[in-house]
Amino acid sequence: MTSPRRTDDGAVVSRPVVRYETGAASSSADRITVEEPLEIRVSGETLAVTMRTPGHDFDLAAGFVLAEGIVRSAADIGKIAHCGRPGDDGYGNVVEVQAAPGVALDLDRSLSARRGTLTTAACGVCGRRTIDDLIERCGVVTDGVRFPAGVVSELTAALRGGQAVFAETGGLHAAAVFGSDGRLLLVREDVGRHNAVDKVFGRMMLDHALPAVACALAVSGRSSFEIVQKAAVARVPLVVSVSAPSSLAIDLAERTGITLVGFARGSAFNVYSHAERVV
Amino acid sequence: MTSPRRTDDGAVVSRPVVRYETGAASSSADRITVEEPLEIRVSGETLAVTMRTPGHDFDLAAGFVLAEGIVRSAADIGKIAHCGRPGDDGYGNVVEVQAAPGVALDLDRSLSARRGTLTTAACGVCGRRTIDDLIERCGVVTDGVRFPAGVVSELTAALRGGQAVFAETGGLHAAAVFGSDGRLLLVREDVGRHNAVDKVFGRMMLDHALPAVACALAVSGRSSFEIVQKAAVARVPLVVSVSAPSSLAIDLAERTGITLVGFARGSAFNVYSHAERVV
Repeated sequence: MTSPRRTDDGAVVSRPVVRYETGAASSSADRITVEEPLEIRVSGETLAVTMRTPGHDFDLAAGFVLAEGIVRSAADIGKIAHCGRPGDDGYGNVVEVQAAPGVALDLDRSLSARRGTLTTAACGVCGRRTIDDLIERCGVVTDGVRFPAGVVSELTAALRGGQAVFAETGGLHAAAVFGSDGRLLLVREDVGRHNAVDKVFGRMMLDHALPAVACALAVSGRSSFEIVQKAAVARVPLVVSVSAPSSLAIDLAERTGITLVGFARGSAFNVYSHAERVV
Repeated sequence: MTSPRRTDDGAVVSRPVVRYETGAASSSADRITVEEPLEIRVSGETLAVTMRTPGHDFDLAAGFVLAEGIVRSAADIGKIAHCGRPGDDGYGNVVEVQAAPGVALDLDRSLSARRGTLTTAACGVCGRRTIDDLIERCGVVTDGVRFPAGVVSELTAALRGGQAVFAETGGLHAAAVFGSDGRLLLVREDVGRHNAVDKVFGRMMLDHALPAVACALAVSGRSSFEIVQKAAVARVPLVVSVSAPSSLAIDLAERTGITLVGFARGSAFNVYSHAERVV
């Protein structure tokens, strides 16, 4: 919702708040992370509506169609544009990905669409079919990149350091990509952890920086199946999260050749798959 | 994925882990939260596939169809059952909600389906239409219930105390319902915060305990639009979260008459809407 209280950057608004502290109430204003729906269209058709924090919306749309298997690289994309006219109600919350000349973008290739409409018990709700599909599409991450343990343990602190909006609101997730030497290359924030990851890889695709074979992805919070799936599509060999991984995230990382690190806090971290990359 | 390493309760597995601490590596086993896809069918048709932590799957399916507007109460449901036969690949990960005799369950009423396929810029991707739809369907929460500030500040600690699996893995979200005196009525855990909320309200619907007019919902992590939406459907007057709310969560709480509390830690908390209910 475009609101008069919305600030210039679009990611933060100010809202009134009553604060209670050991029983005493006081009124003030609080800085709040903006959450708004973004409709992503592909060649005129609605692909998805996702709740996101405004900002880097073209990156998000690009990363989303990449992760869904609808585009393979920036070469498949002609243009990404806002729909409607500035001043229209909801302007800025509808983004269209247009195909490059001679390219047909097929929404039926969307993994989510297939999950939602074509899944049957026989085709593997156990998760195995989804993983097989992904490996067939992307292959397995095989590389000679190694990450010193000292670099791995610094990534989540660097991620937090790069979170501009989080520092202001305490209200959102972040994803960042680092070089194998630990240098921060790119950071994106969003109310949705998966959106932050789409923003990062979408930007990298548009910059022709994929596959990200010598990079590491760091995410706030937990790592789930979906995060590792997006990393596999971008071919990132190392995924580091601040909190716990899920069982399916570990399974997928193991199968796709990704080193999965969790509970990276201070100088300690846990490696759940392909520990050979940490030296 | 049903794995030989899966333990009896289905929510936790043990996996090997290499732990690094200030440069030194050691091998051990770690307790991991299980994440597996659950396919939810309604009268034979696939409604959704959601990634969830196994356990209370019928509660989850019931809460999901409630939140989506496909059922209005337990009276619309004839039976909830597993599809297939025990021992089949993926058995336990497909659940069907069957209509009560004489009731037709219409998948087209699903809010998500409508968001995914019928949304146009004109019909309000600004979020306003979604909120209007919800209010038309559920009305506004109006009641005389009041919550003492001392009760509000105890809810998140009580939520944490009720989290059995979190204590073991550190890897998942929880939702709990409390009486207006702060008594814990029901707690559910899941890798997905929205799934934990669906499990709570699904159980309450099946127990004929909705609308939850004199109750409070507490959730781990942030509160987003989706959490407040589910609370509005269940008609819970108070939603408390450990972390930050989003802007759209506050907007929706304001419009639907819900008291939204965030950053509830220790004896302090922030009230973002309808502060009159906290006394």
